[in-house]
Amino acid sequence: MVKVLAVNAGSSTLKWKLFEMPEEIELADGLIDRLGQPKSNVKVKYGDGQKFTDDRPIENHQEAVASLMTQLKDLGLVTHLHEIVGIGHRVVAGGEQFNRSVVVDDHVLLEIKNLRDYAPLHNPIEATYIDIFREAMPWALEVAVFDTAFHQSMPAENFLYSLPYQYYQQYGARKYGAHGTSVRYVVRRAAEMLNKPLEDLRLVVMHLGSGSSVTAVQNGKSVDTSMGFTPLAGVTMGTRSGDVDPSLIAYLMNKLEITDVNEMIHILNNESGLMGISELSPDQRDLENVEDTNEQAALALNIFANRVFKYVGSYAALMNGIDGLIFTGGVGENGAEMRAKIMAHLSYLGATIDPEANQVRGKETDLSAADATVKTLLIPTNEELMIVRDVMALKAE
Amino acid sequence: MVKVLAVNAGSSTLKWKLFEMPEEIELADGLIDRLGQPKSNVKVKYGDGQKFTDDRPIENHQEAVASLMTQLKDLGLVTHLHEIVGIGHRVVAGGEQFNRSVVVDDHVLLEIKNLRDYAPLHNPIEATYIDIFREAMPWALEVAVFDTAFHQSMPAENFLYSLPYQYYQQYGARKYGAHGTSVRYVVRRAAEMLNKPLEDLRLVVMHLGSGSSVTAVQNGKSVDTSMGFTPLAGVTMGTRSGDVDPSLIAYLMNKLEITDVNEMIHILNNESGLMGISELSPDQRDLENVEDTNEQAALALNIFANRVFKYVGSYAALMNGIDGLIFTGGVGENGAEMRAKIMAHLSYLGATIDPEANQVRGKETDLSAADATVKTLLIPTNEELMIVRDVMALKAE
Repeated sequence: MVKVLAVNAGSSTLKWKLFEMPEEIELADGLIDRLGQPKSNVKVKYGDGQKFTDDRPIENHQEAVASLMTQLKDLGLVTHLHEIVGIGHRVVAGGEQFNRSVVVDDHVLLEIKNLRDYAPLHNPIEATYIDIFREAMPWALEVAVFDTAFHQSMPAENFLYSLPYQYYQQYGARKYGAHGTSVRYVVRRAAEMLNKPLEDLRLVVMHLGSGSSVTAVQNGKSVDTSMGFTPLAGVTMGTRSGDVDPSLIAYLMNKLEITDVNEMIHILNNESGLMGISELSPDQRDLENVEDTNEQAALALNIFANRVFKYVGSYAALMNGIDGLIFTGGVGENGAEMRAKIMAHLSYLGATIDPEANQVRGKETDLSAADATVKTLLIPTNEELMIVRDVMALKAE
Repeated sequence: MVKVLAVNAGSSTLKWKLFEMPEEIELADGLIDRLGQPKSNVKVKYGDGQKFTDDRPIENHQEAVASLMTQLKDLGLVTHLHEIVGIGHRVVAGGEQFNRSVVVDDHVLLEIKNLRDYAPLHNPIEATYIDIFREAMPWALEVAVFDTAFHQSMPAENFLYSLPYQYYQQYGARKYGAHGTSVRYVVRRAAEMLNKPLEDLRLVVMHLGSGSSVTAVQNGKSVDTSMGFTPLAGVTMGTRSGDVDPSLIAYLMNKLEITDVNEMIHILNNESGLMGISELSPDQRDLENVEDTNEQAALALNIFANRVFKYVGSYAALMNGIDGLIFTGGVGENGAEMRAKIMAHLSYLGATIDPEANQVRGKETDLSAADATVKTLLIPTNEELMIVRDVMALKAE
């Protein structure tokens, strides 16, 4: 028995989970939020429903890691930190360099930093945390698990934009996608639930949450995905626009008298999507609460469903048919109404769901109607489990 | 018997066709090109294969119309210009104001000019020609036929982007589409060929050429289309990128040291698409000639097919199934290889074609395989005929 840590770091947040391996027992689920603010926010869920919270200020990333290590010991999650044999780090952008998880050495760390252009808000912070953990727990194997890696199997037809080819060669302008770790986890579970080899299945994964994506998986490999060069593209999201006619960027900059294109992209990332359409909330639960009386809320929900089922349809064409559909992510796992709305457009594929089976939240479920010829599954994702599995696999190599 | 003129004007080009109505006989097909250059280019095809050409310089739009009127008389196409009772003008952008063709009065002309923001290269020129023709042939009914009008039936779910709602309300930022006149023509023909009421059919029209679009038509109405706020969006085109992650605009402007966003949009419109990927030609015939030995040419063709069949798939989901597919436009009508490439991904819909039937160019043909459950039709488009039909219909009102 060993312990492995999964780390998901952001600019003001450090999320982590501790697992006992190879038993895959989740020992604790922690969050350190509001770094650098007068009151930080530390939460740990552990044991059989125990909770620890603290709001003392945590100044920076070093202190966040120190705080994490103190909690591990104080809460009895480890007797000695040496029990932690590996740390898996979620890294947003892996470019074309990384098509799988890797053990971090100096070279890998440099590459992660060099990929900052592809995820300026994420890769630098993630690299910083890897550095800090390497120093704090030098005995543990550090592993980088990339959001983009699983999508590196996409063929050029799907990952290339119809732009001057040199932009791909010189600047890496192509589709990288995201949510890869989640998709990799759920398609394996789907094959187990369907009792068929993953290699024989054409699956479409709808990872729906505040960030949402749709991915086509054929022969166990990602062949196409809705997110693009960045996670801005694809379907409607909480505050992200998804796909828009690029000429609107120029048109709106002119109308809004915006001179910096990055300001426009910021609006597309942060003030658009469900929030932008509804002018109310990026959260589907808020919109569902008022949709009967609020036209824009109803419209936002309809547009979200519309973009998702259209991507599903496009991937059915890509694979010339499908064998299974998977709902995952916060909305995919818990949003029964949204699932029904999406599925209402997919019966032509033979994919229909049982309305009663669909009244479920966050539990692995075969939602398919009795006469469905294409299976529809609800599979809660578990990126952290996938991360610690990758750590164990790389330890064994 | 009367005569009606269909006019399609651009910045340096005036295309026209003369019809005898209501017999719908095409009397002449004319082109005036290279306006303002030392040698202009006048061509008229008429009669039973006769041709007229001239290369004397034509300075401006006024002279172009004067030249057209001279040719009509000199070539015996009319005995007197009063035989021309109506003139239908193709207008690119009709905004939300125009959901059908209309007789041009001062108010309509002003609206067309006011819509210049939506088609800055087209609407002002088209308005100019309407002005000139009104003065030159004041007895003729002037009719504006909008590329966008047929798509005004799209529901908000499909025409709205997931942007802040006020951008739609204040600036008209939404999907307008294009190729509407072409789509309207071919779906009527499709219903006739299938011997079914158009109102009972779910059709997907692939208008493929140097500009390409895919449109979903349900109950005879456009419900969604791949072109967007402008004709830049959607599938890969000759030199247009179609859909790209909008964040790439900012990324590439930074890399290429471009400070004016319009310069970037210009690249997406004019140096991208098949031309950009292949670095060879925007013309599919050129690419097919070398695809066996030129990887980028083959890739460009594959990407084109890929984007088209994915849009078809997305519209199958939108309408929860389809009854018929239609190929039209230069490539759709003549590109047997491209049609086969696209159809290879659509057999899951029950849409398969007969390889022998597919060896056809520019002729109305039912391409469907014997066992196809979804019909696939080749229907040469005829926007000019649609335009003069609209003129006749408005004359009768």
